[in-house]
Amino acid sequence: MPHQPVSGNDLARFAGGGTFMRLPRVETAEGLDVAFLGVPMDHGSSWRSGTRFGPQQIRNESAMIRPYGVQTGAAPFDVLNCADLGDVAINTFNLRDSLKMIEARFDEVLAHDVTPITMGGDHSITLPILRAMAKKHGPLGLVHVDAHADVNDEMFGERETHGTVFRRAYEEGLLRPKDVWQIGLRGTGYTAEDFDEPRDWGFNLVLAQDLWHRSTAPLAKQIRAAMGPGPVYLSYDIDSLDPSIAPGTGTPEIGGLTTPQAMELVRGLRGIPLVGADMVEVSPPYDPHGNTALTAANLIYEILSVLPGVPYR
Amino acid sequence: MPHQPVSGNDLARFAGGGTFMRLPRVETAEGLDVAFLGVPMDHGSSWRSGTRFGPQQIRNESAMIRPYGVQTGAAPFDVLNCADLGDVAINTFNLRDSLKMIEARFDEVLAHDVTPITMGGDHSITLPILRAMAKKHGPLGLVHVDAHADVNDEMFGERETHGTVFRRAYEEGLLRPKDVWQIGLRGTGYTAEDFDEPRDWGFNLVLAQDLWHRSTAPLAKQIRAAMGPGPVYLSYDIDSLDPSIAPGTGTPEIGGLTTPQAMELVRGLRGIPLVGADMVEVSPPYDPHGNTALTAANLIYEILSVLPGVPYR
Amino acid sequence: MPHQPVSGNDLARFAGGGTFMRLPRVETAEGLDVAFLGVPMDHGSSWRSGTRFGPQQIRNESAMIRPYGVQTGAAPFDVLNCADLGDVAINTFNLRDSLKMIEARFDEVLAHDVTPITMGGDHSITLPILRAMAKKHGPLGLVHVDAHADVNDEMFGERETHGTVFRRAYEEGLLRPKDVWQIGLRGTGYTAEDFDEPRDWGFNLVLAQDLWHRSTAPLAKQIRAAMGPGPVYLSYDIDSLDPSIAPGTGTPEIGGLTTPQAMELVRGLRGIPLVGADMVEVSPPYDPHGNTALTAANLIYEILSVLPGVPYR
Amino acid sequence: MPHQPVSGNDLARFAGGGTFMRLPRVETAEGLDVAFLGVPMDHGSSWRSGTRFGPQQIRNESAMIRPYGVQTGAAPFDVLNCADLGDVAINTFNLRDSLKMIEARFDEVLAHDVTPITMGGDHSITLPILRAMAKKHGPLGLVHVDAHADVNDEMFGERETHGTVFRRAYEEGLLRPKDVWQIGLRGTGYTAEDFDEPRDWGFNLVLAQDLWHRSTAPLAKQIRAAMGPGPVYLSYDIDSLDPSIAPGTGTPEIGGLTTPQAMELVRGLRGIPLVGADMVEVSPPYDPHGNTALTAANLIYEILSVLPGVPYR
Amino acid sequence: MPHQPVSGNDLARFAGGGTFMRLPRVETAEGLDVAFLGVPMDHGSSWRSGTRFGPQQIRNESAMIRPYGVQTGAAPFDVLNCADLGDVAINTFNLRDSLKMIEARFDEVLAHDVTPITMGGDHSITLPILRAMAKKHGPLGLVHVDAHADVNDEMFGERETHGTVFRRAYEEGLLRPKDVWQIGLRGTGYTAEDFDEPRDWGFNLVLAQDLWHRSTAPLAKQIRAAMGPGPVYLSYDIDSLDPSIAPGTGTPEIGGLTTPQAMELVRGLRGIPLVGADMVEVSPPYDPHGNTALTAANLIYEILSVLPGVPYR
Amino acid sequence: MPHQPVSGNDLARFAGGGTFMRLPRVETAEGLDVAFLGVPMDHGSSWRSGTRFGPQQIRNESAMIRPYGVQTGAAPFDVLNCADLGDVAINTFNLRDSLKMIEARFDEVLAHDVTPITMGGDHSITLPILRAMAKKHGPLGLVHVDAHADVNDEMFGERETHGTVFRRAYEEGLLRPKDVWQIGLRGTGYTAEDFDEPRDWGFNLVLAQDLWHRSTAPLAKQIRAAMGPGPVYLSYDIDSLDPSIAPGTGTPEIGGLTTPQAMELVRGLRGIPLVGADMVEVSPPYDPHGNTALTAANLIYEILSVLPGVPYR
Repeated sequence: MPHQPVSGNDLARFAGGGTFMRLPRVETAEGLDVAFLGVPMDHGSSWRSGTRFGPQQIRNESAMIRPYGVQTGAAPFDVLNCADLGDVAINTFNLRDSLKMIEARFDEVLAHDVTPITMGGDHSITLPILRAMAKKHGPLGLVHVDAHADVNDEMFGERETHGTVFRRAYEEGLLRPKDVWQIGLRGTGYTAEDFDEPRDWGFNLVLAQDLWHRSTAPLAKQIRAAMGPGPVYLSYDIDSLDPSIAPGTGTPEIGGLTTPQAMELVRGLRGIPLVGADMVEVSPPYDPHGNTALTAANLIYEILSVLPGVPYR
Repeated sequence: MPHQPVSGNDLARFAGGGTFMRLPRVETAEGLDVAFLGVPMDHGSSWRSGTRFGPQQIRNESAMIRPYGVQTGAAPFDVLNCADLGDVAINTFNLRDSLKMIEARFDEVLAHDVTPITMGGDHSITLPILRAMAKKHGPLGLVHVDAHADVNDEMFGERETHGTVFRRAYEEGLLRPKDVWQIGLRGTGYTAEDFDEPRDWGFNLVLAQDLWHRSTAPLAKQIRAAMGPGPVYLSYDIDSLDPSIAPGTGTPEIGGLTTPQAMELVRGLRGIPLVGADMVEVSPPYDPHGNTALTAANLIYEILSVLPGVPYR
Repeated sequence: MPHQPVSGNDLARFAGGGTFMRLPRVETAEGLDVAFLGVPMDHGSSWRSGTRFGPQQIRNESAMIRPYGVQTGAAPFDVLNCADLGDVAINTFNLRDSLKMIEARFDEVLAHDVTPITMGGDHSITLPILRAMAKKHGPLGLVHVDAHADVNDEMFGERETHGTVFRRAYEEGLLRPKDVWQIGLRGTGYTAEDFDEPRDWGFNLVLAQDLWHRSTAPLAKQIRAAMGPGPVYLSYDIDSLDPSIAPGTGTPEIGGLTTPQAMELVRGLRGIPLVGADMVEVSPPYDPHGNTALTAANLIYEILSVLPGVPYR
Repeated sequence: MPHQPVSGNDLARFAGGGTFMRLPRVETAEGLDVAFLGVPMDHGSSWRSGTRFGPQQIRNESAMIRPYGVQTGAAPFDVLNCADLGDVAINTFNLRDSLKMIEARFDEVLAHDVTPITMGGDHSITLPILRAMAKKHGPLGLVHVDAHADVNDEMFGERETHGTVFRRAYEEGLLRPKDVWQIGLRGTGYTAEDFDEPRDWGFNLVLAQDLWHRSTAPLAKQIRAAMGPGPVYLSYDIDSLDPSIAPGTGTPEIGGLTTPQAMELVRGLRGIPLVGADMVEVSPPYDPHGNTALTAANLIYEILSVLPGVPYR
Repeated sequence: MPHQPVSGNDLARFAGGGTFMRLPRVETAEGLDVAFLGVPMDHGSSWRSGTRFGPQQIRNESAMIRPYGVQTGAAPFDVLNCADLGDVAINTFNLRDSLKMIEARFDEVLAHDVTPITMGGDHSITLPILRAMAKKHGPLGLVHVDAHADVNDEMFGERETHGTVFRRAYEEGLLRPKDVWQIGLRGTGYTAEDFDEPRDWGFNLVLAQDLWHRSTAPLAKQIRAAMGPGPVYLSYDIDSLDPSIAPGTGTPEIGGLTTPQAMELVRGLRGIPLVGADMVEVSPPYDPHGNTALTAANLIYEILSVLPGVPYR
Repeated sequence: MPHQPVSGNDLARFAGGGTFMRLPRVETAEGLDVAFLGVPMDHGSSWRSGTRFGPQQIRNESAMIRPYGVQTGAAPFDVLNCADLGDVAINTFNLRDSLKMIEARFDEVLAHDVTPITMGGDHSITLPILRAMAKKHGPLGLVHVDAHADVNDEMFGERETHGTVFRRAYEEGLLRPKDVWQIGLRGTGYTAEDFDEPRDWGFNLVLAQDLWHRSTAPLAKQIRAAMGPGPVYLSYDIDSLDPSIAPGTGTPEIGGLTTPQAMELVRGLRGIPLVGADMVEVSPPYDPHGNTALTAANLIYEILSVLPGVPYR
């Protein structure tokens, strides 16, 4: 039988903890189907910092999640062997080195046949993860939910920051451009043409304003239909949500997704061959009582629920 | 003429206080149509505590509410004699004793012909209130707005907690099962079949996800149409709302109702023979500036506005 | 070339500051198309104070806004010469004097051919601004987005407070009554007939409840179509938004607009001859991490984007 | 037997409330020895506002205080009949009017033989109170604990604000100048000679820096010894304490008194014929969890304990 | 070599976590010299709740502590084998049952030759710990640092709460009365004679006011000199500190110890045969940014440093 | 006449702003005696981030400071021409580059005969400042007030971080070792010998524990007496203060200095030839209401007051 979260009837929910959903803390991914990892880091942020404490707060808030999805019937722990691999060691004073350390750690993890679900950290962590993922799986489809396209060429002369991730990934061939979906984009930009280039590459961009007042289930259906063959990665930036829902984040933009929209979108990805996912940009100092992290933790549960093989009752 | 709230033009709104809407504080329910009571308590909570300060903060925030509903035309204070009975004495170290003390206090209050509106406290307070209500009124219809069905059999071996209320009420015959509506359910559960049993009993369960992106007025209409004859109780758990709206609560679940949905639902109950109501699970330490309590206070005003006999202008 | 905001690639966004969008701080409106001003003040508030720090926090949060609207294509800084005129000197111990000082300052500013965009401050600042505006432009059309109609006759015997602004403006002939739109009204009132009088004057009142669950773009279109000729002023009270979005405000009312609704409404005013605008009632102490001010700052950017002459790419 | 606070063994401490120490709420001072009053107001503040909610938060926090002083043996409720008279009605839009309304209310209260203990509100409330007190008692001795001397001549042309109180009181002959003690003064000033004038009037000024690292008991002893005959008023500004202790205040100044120093000072006044006292400048929005108000409430208890006639066991 | 905390140079301090000082999480006390345990619980609290999250926040804040005491030279990890045993399972709905469960768990732990250091939880946890300790060690000396003596006979009819611990312990013969030191007592009480009885039993009571403005090193020396032979337990209630230092606690009392006083007191106990200790009443919701827990974590480190056998360099 | 801060009687204190003490914002140091600069940055931090917003919050809080020191008589603006040079541009994604950019900017500033007073930012900013200062002035004496000695050799392999500043400065000959005073040291360390090396270099180390319960004026006198000839730099880390006073900081350590001790220490440096100073490690997200920044701003005023040439009245 797979690892199970500690039950709230065995140990009060506010006890234990330190791992995602109070799953076991293990040292290697061997034998796991799903590995939760933290990458506590914020030196790739351009506005507010604080995401270095994101993994801790997400884990703390995840303690209230029970194993079954009562709205969906999902029963991920019936078949998937899940555990928490702890946090990746980074160099907090050097972003470039940290990105290399992250990639090396994911190479190790991916030596096993495991789906990594990563808790950030700022969005710059996704680039080394994609590098490791692409080494193993080849070019990836991508569902990228975010207020920002993160396709700058450079910021302050740096080519690897939380704002340049997906341009680098495109240039390095880590992605299948026509299978890239960027969802929730909005806000203001340095030019009025910020989105022209990624569209030229083949990326599919969905502005937040085109989703206002409606379900995202049709969008998810459209993505499922259009997605070409091959593995897909899901990168979820919590700032895709409206800042009234997720105030604890690095670069909030008004007019974002609602929580139901986020849940419908993730649930609608069921059937897509996800091989990894991340949840980034949760910044606890800006939301000390933890609603942002609570939302992140529950969205991770929703992501877990749509991994290939999860049974529904 | 009935008691009136202190006017904001007689005494600045931030003055006075200590009672709901700055109504008079009285010692008995004699002569009242509506009695506001607090049950400050949190030892029935399984995740966050703090609801013991709920009644205080709801009363504080209620000071801004004026007597007339400008959107609805409701004029409750034109006809209903309302006052605040203060807080129920409980034993803060013993949940079981507290539930008995609450029941005894409601027996006293209900010796008068009065509609009690109670401010919690965690949801476990509703069981003794229902016991007292059913003694007076017989089995009750129930509109229960909540993220959770609260139909566990036991928690840590205890049969009377905030998670077992409505199973006990069902078993004890306090409710008319086919007239029970549980609205806003969502989140995760200990089994995938958590909701099968209450449905078997005859309860009507409405998942939050079935309400996303739409008005709840049709649901309210459906409830009015389906509700069998006899008195009805309204139990409103503030966690039915999305945690972005009501972060100050004991067991927040993402993807909840919006405030307009909550208001439409309550307003839509006009015409149903409500004989009592409660507003539970407001936990001030998790929302010190008081939006959760502000919302609770205004929803109580909306409940007051749909009590039998309230005129609309 | 007009003044430009300091770029986030020249100076980190968390640096600089002290002006709206890090525009230049100037002493006179000469040569400007748009002047940003603060009126830090809260002695016109009847419930919570704190709006005296509103301009500071709005300016701080505005530092993250970039020059182009990626959803709309707006490019206001391509043609409009914008700068920050700093704060208006008031007498913090005397509301009446302060209103006179504000009017005098706006007379000075309006000696130039400039569109003032003002950051409050409680809503009482709008009366002296309208007086100055009407002196220059004649009676104004008004788009007034707010939870409250602010048409009381007096409060505590005072005729000039944040709750009496638009009755005074009406009485003084500052407005073209049939071109007045009050949008987002809700909550509770001192009488059930609070809105009858302004309707009699010719004002167009739109209740929040009539906007729930839908786009406000049709409303904006209706306003554009109905608006008579002549200049229009936009007064935006942040409490028009739901308090889950804008908790940092003086008199929050549940059931308000969503951010997308606010953005659609402002964007839909493009084409109307706006000659001035204000954003009022941001109260930082009730939202220390600044989401309310962030929202206000971005809505100001949206207002700037619909000023006459702004190009769209 | 005098009124007693509700016991924490009869009603849980977090229940009841709305009055100081859960004493009875009464309408007149008739038959009382001590009357607690609130003056919720902040329009006399020059920096942060928010003190309008001071009385509410002080009352809320006072619920934890039990009747006997375990360190001192004081038993005030054994002999003094105490009750809460609620809040004074003010005009929140007009400081001058408010000061008149306060004076009128204190005239009423002082028609009875009662010692008023007032919870502010900003410090401007003390001037009308002193006027009423002096009418009844003649010129008063004064113990004034504060970071600021509040002896400006005017601020923004206003002669009655929180910064001018004691100059006005001096000019009007409300005080016995040689019996005035101003304690805890510090910070920065508009001139280097800010304190020369009050010293010339005969006031005794004690700088905070002269109290650092030592007990204030000797100072209290010195005051007792030097105090001329006649009634004495105690005005306690919470900003006399260091802002690490009392962050929730209008004009914090670093380097203030410690809580033990404040307690020693008040305790050391035992034997002085106090006829009234106030506790001002508690601003809840800047300390939502309430340590400032908790401190204020306990210092009020200490003041109560040194009133003439209180027995010690 | 004993277990070592994870070094901040191997893994960034904000990573890892979930155990005290990032020590290993183990299942049994076998082979340990010191076992850290949490007892997350708050149903024994009479004022504010929230201590159920105390162990989590103390562990989170402990991540910044490095292995050596730079002021003292203490090197506890050179010789003591330390690990974290996780949290004790309690029944969150039933205080009485929880106390039995705690005692049973400590019986298990104490089957090994280990010194338990426990993180609370409210103070009621100390009674079952003392019962287990006394079974193993016989009657104990006690150093009890607290604002309150916790010697009530009952509260709401309950004999086992956070306010009755040490009366019960005395009655049950768990303590050597003349070797009991209660330090930091202050505040208000239900009678003026609250402290007479424990003094009659032989307890040594030290009021906070007798420690103001001075070092506690002489007191520690006095305790060392007076302590009779036999094992000693240290129970540290964080509310012994002034609430300006430790606001996140259940029943704050003004005028408490300073942090240096707390550190001197603990350091001064070096040489006393401590066999166990606890740190209780840390309530995170009232101090979300964690200074209270930071202080608690560091004081636990100081306690660890004075355990028998710790070398000093 | 030198630049003057905007008076609080000309413009309400909560207005204006954006510069230190509302002094003029200028572009070059030409003609200035004292230049205030911000270095908003946090990527040199090892525990909490957030200091990138330090300069903004310090400037905001400085608005309440008036020009004269009422306790000291200092009148710095009578003779010193002071202004705010704004913030230094850094590369937020690259610590090494940022340190170079800081040094270059200080080289520019120091081309003028000006005393720079810098607001951080994490402590790593002090190394490039010292490099620029030593280029101009030769080796410097140093008064370094801090919880930490910051003399690590490296952290995560990096040689230039907030924990290595003074070792690098020593190695590079920027300091006169015997004239280096490190004051307030405490906490825990990686080895028990952390302080041996700096003592060997000639540094004077003063532990916090040796200052508890006493004035620091004698220490300041000792420093003045011992300081060799030549210019002196003052580096003030806000974490030298106890975290109850300055919770908003990156690496808090319990048992720190009190505010009076900090003020006495700075005041006692009068007469020492200070040529520059910094105030670092203020992290606003951990103290949103700003007491830490308020303290920092006032200590900067105290530093300004002891610069050579300031008159005292």
